[in-house]
Amino acid sequence: MSHTEFSPAEQAILQCILMARRDVRGNRFCPDPIAERDVNTILQAAAWAPSVGFSQPWEFVLITDKATRSQVAASFAAENARAQHLFADEKQRHYQQLKLEGILDAPLNIAVFYKPSAQPVLGQTSMVEPGEYSVVCAVQNMWLMARALNIGMGWVSILDPLKVKEILRAPAQLKLVAYLCLGYVNEFLDQPELEILQWEQRKPLETVVHRETFSD
Amino acid sequence: MSHTEFSPAEQAILQCILMARRDVRGNRFCPDPIAERDVNTILQAAAWAPSVGFSQPWEFVLITDKATRSQVAASFAAENARAQHLFADEKQRHYQQLKLEGILDAPLNIAVFYKPSAQPVLGQTSMVEPGEYSVVCAVQNMWLMARALNIGMGWVSILDPLKVKEILRAPAQLKLVAYLCLGYVNEFLDQPELEILQWEQRKPLETVVHRETFSD
Repeated sequence: MSHTEFSPAEQAILQCILMARRDVRGNRFCPDPIAERDVNTILQAAAWAPSVGFSQPWEFVLITDKATRSQVAASFAAENARAQHLFADEKQRHYQQLKLEGILDAPLNIAVFYKPSAQPVLGQTSMVEPGEYSVVCAVQNMWLMARALNIGMGWVSILDPLKVKEILRAPAQLKLVAYLCLGYVNEFLDQPELEILQWEQRKPLETVVHRETFSD
Repeated sequence: MSHTEFSPAEQAILQCILMARRDVRGNRFCPDPIAERDVNTILQAAAWAPSVGFSQPWEFVLITDKATRSQVAASFAAENARAQHLFADEKQRHYQQLKLEGILDAPLNIAVFYKPSAQPVLGQTSMVEPGEYSVVCAVQNMWLMARALNIGMGWVSILDPLKVKEILRAPAQLKLVAYLCLGYVNEFLDQPELEILQWEQRKPLETVVHRETFSD
């Protein structure tokens, strides 16, 4: 049994890390490789994530090889070229100016996969999604640990997941959950970049919190 | 620009919170209501989560009403009765002894939904999942903040999500991502309960980490 009680000062440090975490894009990464010790600290944080039925259904691929990253960057370029046409007029012009990934700028990429269990998993018998959701919890732990280590991390989702699987020779049953770019940075933005650039506005908390049920 | 650099001492506090976070089950919750201030701190942590295209696609329902929670508990009971038959022999006997939820024991339940956007979302044009994944990142932030506040939280996934939507009168387009039970606790287990009970073993990190590609 653990009687560890965190203090208000420790609570404030967690809040500070949660608030200071940013999605870091390409032009902000330093090219220096991340120290092996820091990489291990980030992976250890992932392994402490909750998982449905303690199934720990995650697999990580650490990628530094430039040829591999170039292939992934090509998938981004193709998908991003398609994506911009989904936005109209002013929004499309705005979209084209955004730098949305750091695949080649960041010295380390980490592809994170969900590996379904061959056996029934406790807690995954009514809803199947908690398997993938466990992997996402691991990614969020990585993000927070990286930020605390003053390492930038960005999540690239404008990719063809089947193409990425092929590039990384992933077993057929695995599913790509996240493709991450990591590297040291000199500074972090004070707010999400898409908020600063007025792509989207922050939602006031009271607009997304309901009491007892949704109102009719 | 923020030049906030976290120190080794602050990094160690985050590691301690990540490591001490637990999925808390029914028999460990105190019935005392959670202070409104603590509830707000936990919801604020959720709102600091990353979200694809800064879409913040989350909706939260705070449930204290006993009649509502009893209906959700009935869905758990039905789904759990079905689930146990998926496990064979010894595993089934073990399953039947587990306490897997705290819906009525915990003073506060929070249902967390994903609300898809009616417009295209930046970053969600090739893969649709990052919308739901954003909501999961918010849940993990809540879990860590709750633990730092010495509040227990459990995630119940043995539920019929459509039944829960109906009970909470959720709009049709919303998707249930997580159903959470929260309350003060006197202590936290040192390890995940399913690890202590030898339901599953912890995977050594090196078995889930690959270099450059999966090996052939």
